[in-house]
Amino acid sequence: MSRKVGPWTVKSERTVFENPWIAIEDQAVTRPDGSDGEYGVVRFKNIAVGVLPVSESGDVWLVGQHRFPHDAYSWELPEGGGPVGVDALESAKRELAEETGLTARQWRPFLSCDLSNSVTDERAACFLAWDLEEGEAAPEPSESLTIKRVKFATLLDMVMNGDISDSLTILMTLKAHLLALRGRVPTPISDHLKAEGAR
Amino acid sequence: MSRKVGPWTVKSERTVFENPWIAIEDQAVTRPDGSDGEYGVVRFKNIAVGVLPVSESGDVWLVGQHRFPHDAYSWELPEGGGPVGVDALESAKRELAEETGLTARQWRPFLSCDLSNSVTDERAACFLAWDLEEGEAAPEPSESLTIKRVKFATLLDMVMNGDISDSLTILMTLKAHLLALRGRVPTPISDHLKAEGAR
Repeated sequence: MSRKVGPWTVKSERTVFENPWIAIEDQAVTRPDGSDGEYGVVRFKNIAVGVLPVSESGDVWLVGQHRFPHDAYSWELPEGGGPVGVDALESAKRELAEETGLTARQWRPFLSCDLSNSVTDERAACFLAWDLEEGEAAPEPSESLTIKRVKFATLLDMVMNGDISDSLTILMTLKAHLLALRGRVPTPISDHLKAEGAR
Repeated sequence: MSRKVGPWTVKSERTVFENPWIAIEDQAVTRPDGSDGEYGVVRFKNIAVGVLPVSESGDVWLVGQHRFPHDAYSWELPEGGGPVGVDALESAKRELAEETGLTARQWRPFLSCDLSNSVTDERAACFLAWDLEEGEAAPEPSESLTIKRVKFATLLDMVMNGDISDSLTILMTLKAHLLALRGRVPTPISDHLKAEGAR
């Protein structure tokens, strides 16, 4: 049985690989122009979640780790994944606590996007977190993380200078800053995210 | 023969799927904490390229298309892929011309990043393009594209309001705007990218 996907027709599909994080679906398709083709889609079992935690003094938390697919060290805001179908906010709270030990009394979603929409169906959901309380981090045993606390203005400079390679960290930093400049984030953290000293 | 990848050890690996765009490598690893595991990496054969083309009057070009993996329509800046190992600028010039018919006399790289660094090794390289000349678009036969010309300020508002879901378009729009606010883009397009009327 074929099925329509927008202007495409899927004639057959098979799962060619699967692990706890992804499934690769190889699909025989008819393209929008009527020609035959093949489309390999990487389906993600998790939504990517990202958190920008801001302290009363304007600090944010960065997580450093070696990223296996790139064989490179990367400094990023707290990020992780939560199962598709589970509230992304709950996954974000869990990842923030696991990686940094932080809990936050205030949360606000401020960005969602597709990370690589020609090949994968991965979605990301990002949150501002403030009114923080520090606790004990509990990273997964497979993770080897380093935590660094810096001013938001420092992170913004790192992003603007190209010192951060992780797309979600760049996205969160730039959008939080611009929302603050437009008066669209709450007062307790707005001045910090304006980062006026940073230019 | 095992090999080291940062704090990881790869004990064996096999390619479990391959098409012209990606290869899936399933790797038996020893994790940083010494435990055994499996890591499935999606290797991309292309670098993602994105272009922000700015006209003398402050217009930019958006490309609308149905994105198969998400089964959703998406408005984006001109984007595409170029083979790893080929100069990303050449790929960006080709994609801009194919999708919009535009050629540009001025180009500047302004953003590079990893799009999904826990699972894929996909890299992106983005360029500002100005001093434009219009010509005939020549999209690939498999593509069904709609082109829309809007003010940069309009695109910025779309991004800030969450009307754009493509990560690379959001990244390019926000970074170009902030570079302009910081006086770090060339004069001919700087005022347009400041988008002062947009707030």
